[in-house]
Amino acid sequence: MTDAAPRRGRGRPTRTQTQAAPATRDRILEAAREEFSERGYEKTSVRGIAKSAGVDSALVHHYFGTKEQVFEAAIEVAFAPALGAPEKIVEGPLDGVGERLTRFVLGIWENPTSRTPLLAIVRSAVNNDTAAAVFRRLVAAQLLRRIAGRIDLPDPELRAELAAAQLVGVAMLRHVIKVEPLASADLERIVARVAPVVQGHLTNP
Amino acid sequence: MTDAAPRRGRGRPTRTQTQAAPATRDRILEAAREEFSERGYEKTSVRGIAKSAGVDSALVHHYFGTKEQVFEAAIEVAFAPALGAPEKIVEGPLDGVGERLTRFVLGIWENPTSRTPLLAIVRSAVNNDTAAAVFRRLVAAQLLRRIAGRIDLPDPELRAELAAAQLVGVAMLRHVIKVEPLASADLERIVARVAPVVQGHLTNP
Repeated sequence: MTDAAPRRGRGRPTRTQTQAAPATRDRILEAAREEFSERGYEKTSVRGIAKSAGVDSALVHHYFGTKEQVFEAAIEVAFAPALGAPEKIVEGPLDGVGERLTRFVLGIWENPTSRTPLLAIVRSAVNNDTAAAVFRRLVAAQLLRRIAGRIDLPDPELRAELAAAQLVGVAMLRHVIKVEPLASADLERIVARVAPVVQGHLTNP
Repeated sequence: MTDAAPRRGRGRPTRTQTQAAPATRDRILEAAREEFSERGYEKTSVRGIAKSAGVDSALVHHYFGTKEQVFEAAIEVAFAPALGAPEKIVEGPLDGVGERLTRFVLGIWENPTSRTPLLAIVRSAVNNDTAAAVFRRLVAAQLLRRIAGRIDLPDPELRAELAAAQLVGVAMLRHVIKVEPLASADLERIVARVAPVVQGHLTNP
């Protein structure tokens, strides 16, 4: 949580600002998350984030760099539970990995608190190539590759991505497009049908 | 193709305009598709569509009604091949339906000509609830329900939607987020893994 190695460059803060670093940094990140959630990637500006956090734009650049880097930091916070989860999901018997992954991903979408920032990220990624690249870098590199690392079969990365595709599609149709009966179906009914598919992608010969 | 029952209401066209109806209607639809593709649902206006088609806004309202109805008509044109396809896909032996559906849906996304309007529709549906409702009405009611109609097992609609979710997710990760190796993988490798999953959703006991 300490700000041991702040980014050097334009808008280097004064001594007073540096002392308040962790709190200020968190406040900027929170403002960034709200701005990106409300406006999407394209319409959000570093100036708007700074204003909302009550700091100078230079300070946002100082801590995070470009708008793309602020976005990446904001996503990283929103995804923190997901990005820390692969060990828990992949640890333990491989024949339960499909259900653990399904429950975990769909669970994030069931909870309105975690759904809102996720939805904002998905919207940004669908609309903007830079935001898509950030999403890809974080989710693909940090989440999918780590799951793939545990698969001792041909095409582990493709397998992990097709398993993810099933879950992404369910989240899209259930929570974004809201197709019925999927949108209102009991989560357990969905898990019962989807978990074996995710498992199959990952571990079927 | 004749305009037998034009919508009554404001902006009823003159006799000269009515005689040119099919061509004018098509021109408006084409302009609508381009405007929605370029700007998305929210930023597109009936006025902008009219301007691009070289007609008065009243004529757009006359033929199609509200912006939502213009959007629906534009989507219907873009989806015409897909909406006409369920018979071809569901006809024939049920044990090949997974592969036929997979090839059909992923095939639309492989072709840049059909991918562009589809991407515009998906972007609009992800960003705007009205656009999502149109998408849901068309795709769910016309495509998914017709597939579900052929399934003689419990939960036919949920099955069709989970099969669709797998395909939606593959399209998203391959063509929108562009996760590798999925984005560059040969289509046949993807079909080989995905078709059995789609088949399973639809016909496994």
